[in-house]
Amino acid sequence: MHMSELDRMIARLMTQRICLDHAARELAAREGSVLEVGLGKARTFDHLRALFPDRTLYAFDFEVHAPKRLVPPQASLFLGDFRETLPAAFDALGCSAALIHADIGSRDREADARLAADVAPMLDALLVPGGMVLTDRAMDDVGWQSVPLPDAAPGNWPYFMYRKTA
Amino acid sequence: MHMSELDRMIARLMTQRICLDHAARELAAREGSVLEVGLGKARTFDHLRALFPDRTLYAFDFEVHAPKRLVPPQASLFLGDFRETLPAAFDALGCSAALIHADIGSRDREADARLAADVAPMLDALLVPGGMVLTDRAMDDVGWQSVPLPDAAPGNWPYFMYRKTA
Repeated sequence: MHMSELDRMIARLMTQRICLDHAARELAAREGSVLEVGLGKARTFDHLRALFPDRTLYAFDFEVHAPKRLVPPQASLFLGDFRETLPAAFDALGCSAALIHADIGSRDREADARLAADVAPMLDALLVPGGMVLTDRAMDDVGWQSVPLPDAAPGNWPYFMYRKTA
Repeated sequence: MHMSELDRMIARLMTQRICLDHAARELAAREGSVLEVGLGKARTFDHLRALFPDRTLYAFDFEVHAPKRLVPPQASLFLGDFRETLPAAFDALGCSAALIHADIGSRDREADARLAADVAPMLDALLVPGGMVLTDRAMDDVGWQSVPLPDAAPGNWPYFMYRKTA
């Protein structure tokens, strides 16, 4: 059936929320920070704040598009090309993230696939064993274990959950 | 319970979609065009296109923020202050709209209330008897009949449906 842009947005946001809520439960006993790769409008970042009130959150984006009241403090913000800021984050933070949410998709599937292939090993360096990656683009070549989406996910939006084996 | 920005966006879009889908069924036998007051990202406009494939659609906004592929043709687009473009639309189109969707809300409730009070009579002039208005801001002073939201609406987002009595 044809999905309107409104249908697509709802499917995307519902899938995101269901997967993030699921990951928060899965990671309750696993220490580590939370990385938001692709801050965008910071809606999801705000949701991560609510889900992980006691953790340190970091956000990555090329530039800031979010409303001021939602933008994280400068010290938690890595601005610029992911291919540069992710290694810089590793230098600063080391292997310390329990959850990485990477919404990096655009309408250019080929460019997205190249970006996903480039950043996946960088995310892997930042991710603690047992940590999880949630992303809108497949990252199947890093050796992470694929995790099935929760049953509640609407099923009409591609999304990927992975766990780094301990 | 605290709603994150992600929760709020989902509540808003779900409420919109459920109400618009409901209005499309209600208005199936009522001739007339469809007006989108507040084009924004044109996601809802795209949904209206799918719901009303055989009707003429018009969109109003201060300026265009939507991706090019979703923007309606120039002849269907009224750009500028609603207080000027709605009377101009009445001069051009007359009383001819079966459905008006007016998402005009901002974070400034007082300014929104003034805007709603100003534009409601302008919308009324454009609306055929029996036509419906769906809006994110109350417009209770024009004499329209308030229509309860469909049961399926999530109930955690303020939204308003009205019908102009025939």
